[in-house]
Amino acid sequence: MNKIDIAFDQQPRFPRGFSCASRLVGLKKEGRDLSLFVCDVDAPAAAIFTRNQFPGAPVVLGRETIRGGVLRAIVVNSKVSNVATGAAGVENARRMARAAAAEIGCDAQHVLVSSTGVIGVPLPIDRIESGIRGMRAELQTDPYVGAQGIMTTDTYAKAVSIEIGSATLTIVAKGAGMIEPNMATMLVYIFTDARFTARQLDSMLREAANVSFNMLSVDTDTSTSDTCVILANGLAGDVDEDLFRAGLRAACIRMTELLARDGEGATKLLRATVVGAASDADARKVAKSIINSPLVKTMAHGADPNVGRLLMAIGKCFDVQLAPSRTRCAINQVVVVDKGERCEFDEPALRHELRGDPIDIDIDLGVGDAAATAFGCDLTSGYIEENASYYSS
Amino acid sequence: MNKIDIAFDQQPRFPRGFSCASRLVGLKKEGRDLSLFVCDVDAPAAAIFTRNQFPGAPVVLGRETIRGGVLRAIVVNSKVSNVATGAAGVENARRMARAAAAEIGCDAQHVLVSSTGVIGVPLPIDRIESGIRGMRAELQTDPYVGAQGIMTTDTYAKAVSIEIGSATLTIVAKGAGMIEPNMATMLVYIFTDARFTARQLDSMLREAANVSFNMLSVDTDTSTSDTCVILANGLAGDVDEDLFRAGLRAACIRMTELLARDGEGATKLLRATVVGAASDADARKVAKSIINSPLVKTMAHGADPNVGRLLMAIGKCFDVQLAPSRTRCAINQVVVVDKGERCEFDEPALRHELRGDPIDIDIDLGVGDAAATAFGCDLTSGYIEENASYYSS
Repeated sequence: MNKIDIAFDQQPRFPRGFSCASRLVGLKKEGRDLSLFVCDVDAPAAAIFTRNQFPGAPVVLGRETIRGGVLRAIVVNSKVSNVATGAAGVENARRMARAAAAEIGCDAQHVLVSSTGVIGVPLPIDRIESGIRGMRAELQTDPYVGAQGIMTTDTYAKAVSIEIGSATLTIVAKGAGMIEPNMATMLVYIFTDARFTARQLDSMLREAANVSFNMLSVDTDTSTSDTCVILANGLAGDVDEDLFRAGLRAACIRMTELLARDGEGATKLLRATVVGAASDADARKVAKSIINSPLVKTMAHGADPNVGRLLMAIGKCFDVQLAPSRTRCAINQVVVVDKGERCEFDEPALRHELRGDPIDIDIDLGVGDAAATAFGCDLTSGYIEENASYYSS
Repeated sequence: MNKIDIAFDQQPRFPRGFSCASRLVGLKKEGRDLSLFVCDVDAPAAAIFTRNQFPGAPVVLGRETIRGGVLRAIVVNSKVSNVATGAAGVENARRMARAAAAEIGCDAQHVLVSSTGVIGVPLPIDRIESGIRGMRAELQTDPYVGAQGIMTTDTYAKAVSIEIGSATLTIVAKGAGMIEPNMATMLVYIFTDARFTARQLDSMLREAANVSFNMLSVDTDTSTSDTCVILANGLAGDVDEDLFRAGLRAACIRMTELLARDGEGATKLLRATVVGAASDADARKVAKSIINSPLVKTMAHGADPNVGRLLMAIGKCFDVQLAPSRTRCAINQVVVVDKGERCEFDEPALRHELRGDPIDIDIDLGVGDAAATAFGCDLTSGYIEENASYYSS
């Protein structure tokens, strides 16, 4: 992967022309459960959605909406995901788009709708419709305000922003569980004042998601609501495309790390980097296998140097080209496997590293030139506790 | 699947001509860590092993041993798996076979070796060699004695036996974590006094494993030591082949359920049965996806009727043929999804069912005639606790 110097803003802020508001409209008991993101002008836009075969109603509608290639707003509720709700669910998603369009004075076809939360519960659309009224007067420019309204089990609101040439790029996202996105992630909204066409945005978004959100897994479970969208209103004029691609990629990777680190119950970020693979597909598969292995994840949690589990997790990729005698593994630079065998290493030093955060697992397969990095987190009792009663709590 | 009336013995016992012994030779601190299973005569035998690309030394040796198609004994140690130990590991496995052969007076090529426990630690072969001496005098006919010596994180010793015509079939097995076997399971030893050739046994074993051990997953992690072997000494003479196939299949499924129910930290058995699939591969994939989903597993653990997660786990099988509007799901006979949507159901009744054990999840995909059942368990804090310090404890 190419590395570039990217300056992240200490305090994330919106690009020119974007604003947001959030409210508590009665879906949750406390906090905020409804967010509205608005662009002052029509913005070329692109989006990618979950590959889950039971997509939520907002995803069904979103695929239709994004065909126009232009967005003015995104409206999102948390607590109820409007999934497995049939034709009534899709009609509720349309009503949500119409309510937001009426509030800000635009075409409902330029409003992207998202819902996140429990699956299989009817959307309380009346509360949402009445809750949207008056939000226009509350629009302001702190992206964290919008980020707060879309949280479910996230422990903190997530936003990053960077400068790319004359433009700003800001990502607001949520997601902590049911995360092994595929072609997108939970909910990711990317705003920029750079000028690009919807077609350019689509290509750049897919490329960036491929090395960031699509390499993220908290728990191997693919949400029915995954949505990743980018809006570029052009108010900052033209920006060098290569520079923008690099900036977008870096920002998406940063947000991916924030999402992984806040995985349900997580206490640390795991990054698995595979080099020397025979193909990109092989590199990605092995990196994901490491990140998804419950036994690697619990090892990281317990700071227990049970490093043989790395070989197990590589070796269970049955169709990946390996040369066991050339396989090498390191954890935070401590080499623990060499030539396919566990090697001597400083065990107290490794225990010390494993108690830290993040944990970087580096694998060299020694059979080719392809590489990939996957992002995840440790597996803890916190994950169990949150998910044993998510519906009821 | 064909169902037959199978009478399991209340008290598992060995078929004619088989015996076992177990000892504590100093690998573990307490309990037993070495088992010897012996047949009085040469027995035609077949075996299947892990598909993990980093197989343990005993698996490397076992593949060579089973080529002869005849076994007289199985020697197994627990605590250390002799995996990722290179050429020295294979030599240690050979020494273990030779020591057992010397003790019982047979050819070392007729002794199958297994090791289970921590990966990447040298096998304490001296303790094993001296520990084997004198075991012949302790051979007896209670299979539980052998089962005790092969346990790692298992909470109880596992053996089942059934009568098939004039013959007896007995399975001794272990395994609680790092379990999503592929072509085999952790360690499964099957003994019978029926008469079959090694070739017949191989075919019957693969067929039975395909619907039992290969459909088991505790945690999606595939061990480097998986071994499943069958010995048929023929002392009971000929048995009807179809009857034997059915009995073997039933006994393997019963043992699979015992292994799943004793999954690390588990409090209940999960069974996912998929019908109406377009192909066997699709049915197996969806059943495994249900059993492997952390969110379904934690739902079962918490008795939380978050039934939308079933659709999520089906829908994330991207390449499986689905017709969402024909999908139907039930939990312990309570229909919770109909026509691809969550339907009305008696929630208190479902909560009551979810508090029980086992949990049967039935999925009808409505697109074809293929079916499959997968076996697993709930996901609890007990799994985390065991695996955060397995190496150190």
